[in-house]
Amino acid sequence: MQKENIDYTLYLCTDRELMSVETIEESVEQAIAGGCTVVQLREKDCSSLDFYLLAGRVKEITDRYGVPLIINDRVDIAMAVDAEGVHVGQSDLPMGLVRKMIGRDKILGVSAHNIAEAVEACRAGADYLGVGAIFSTSTKKDAAVVGIDELKRIREAVDVPIVAIGGIHRENIEVFKGFGLDGLAVVSAVVAQVDIAEAAAELVRRFRS
Amino acid sequence: MQKENIDYTLYLCTDRELMSVETIEESVEQAIAGGCTVVQLREKDCSSLDFYLLAGRVKEITDRYGVPLIINDRVDIAMAVDAEGVHVGQSDLPMGLVRKMIGRDKILGVSAHNIAEAVEACRAGADYLGVGAIFSTSTKKDAAVVGIDELKRIREAVDVPIVAIGGIHRENIEVFKGFGLDGLAVVSAVVAQVDIAEAAAELVRRFRS
Repeated sequence: MQKENIDYTLYLCTDRELMSVETIEESVEQAIAGGCTVVQLREKDCSSLDFYLLAGRVKEITDRYGVPLIINDRVDIAMAVDAEGVHVGQSDLPMGLVRKMIGRDKILGVSAHNIAEAVEACRAGADYLGVGAIFSTSTKKDAAVVGIDELKRIREAVDVPIVAIGGIHRENIEVFKGFGLDGLAVVSAVVAQVDIAEAAAELVRRFRS
Repeated sequence: MQKENIDYTLYLCTDRELMSVETIEESVEQAIAGGCTVVQLREKDCSSLDFYLLAGRVKEITDRYGVPLIINDRVDIAMAVDAEGVHVGQSDLPMGLVRKMIGRDKILGVSAHNIAEAVEACRAGADYLGVGAIFSTSTKKDAAVVGIDELKRIREAVDVPIVAIGGIHRENIEVFKGFGLDGLAVVSAVVAQVDIAEAAAELVRRFRS
């Protein structure tokens, strides 16, 4: 998988608290079946061993579908399962250091909340940016809202792919069209739905239409 | 620092909940001044960035005194600050994998609770074992007690350095003498004391006498 050719259209972030099915693996496989193009695995409260074992099982699924797997925060877990990339926020390991650890060929994603962070992330070698929270969201209650205007300014300021994140669902994605956004990052809009595959498919359809 | 020459006599595990001083850095420096020979940094509830920054500050102290710094669990943090080693428990990343990630020259420590785990850890390339909890301990209330007899059997079964851990304090260390134990791992017996340096010095004195 060449990292330059990644399709960021529908970027799934896992969440075991919100998912409508029993396992992360099921939620990932159904989301991919519906059209998710990237999977980010995020675990905050499990042991390193459990995270590693889960990441290995999810990697089998993403490999089978040819979808890149990105590990949130934990560079060691990403390296341990040979994931396609790592996503770091502003309170994770410094971007430049992560790049050195994972090497040039892996995907480095960075969360940015304003132009300054976006420009800095690109300077440090980010391959894509996650920008948000665009809308207030119950998934991450403490996340500051960035707003669509700042998102557009970031889009103008940097060249790397950008996915919007935060409170995005099928009813509010019209605002993301027409200014070169690469994709939508979603959590509950996909994994919390009764029909995960259908929810993913509908988001892809609406975003691309 | 050659890992074959590490002195395991007094192996400090940090604990920000228990320490008698304000910062981890102070507790580490005072403990080393008193005679601690190895420092293990353990953080479970902070961001990766905070862990990394703290580890970097502690590394400056341990480097200054020529004492090895071991990072608990987080292989990425250990690599990021070029720590001397990593310590993994049975619910952390698999030992063989950690060895591949950190390379041959770094110290790999493993927690073992019985002969089977101890032998398996040595087979996977552990450089030392932490065996415990020897006594029940308020620092880690869920830790199963191993007992001094099993510790002695482990000592006979493996060749790598062994440190005992769990509920060890200056009044109960007589039991650790005379069977080739390499050192004592302590938390509250050092960092929770009013005079951390003196507490460390007294433990070293009693263990070596």
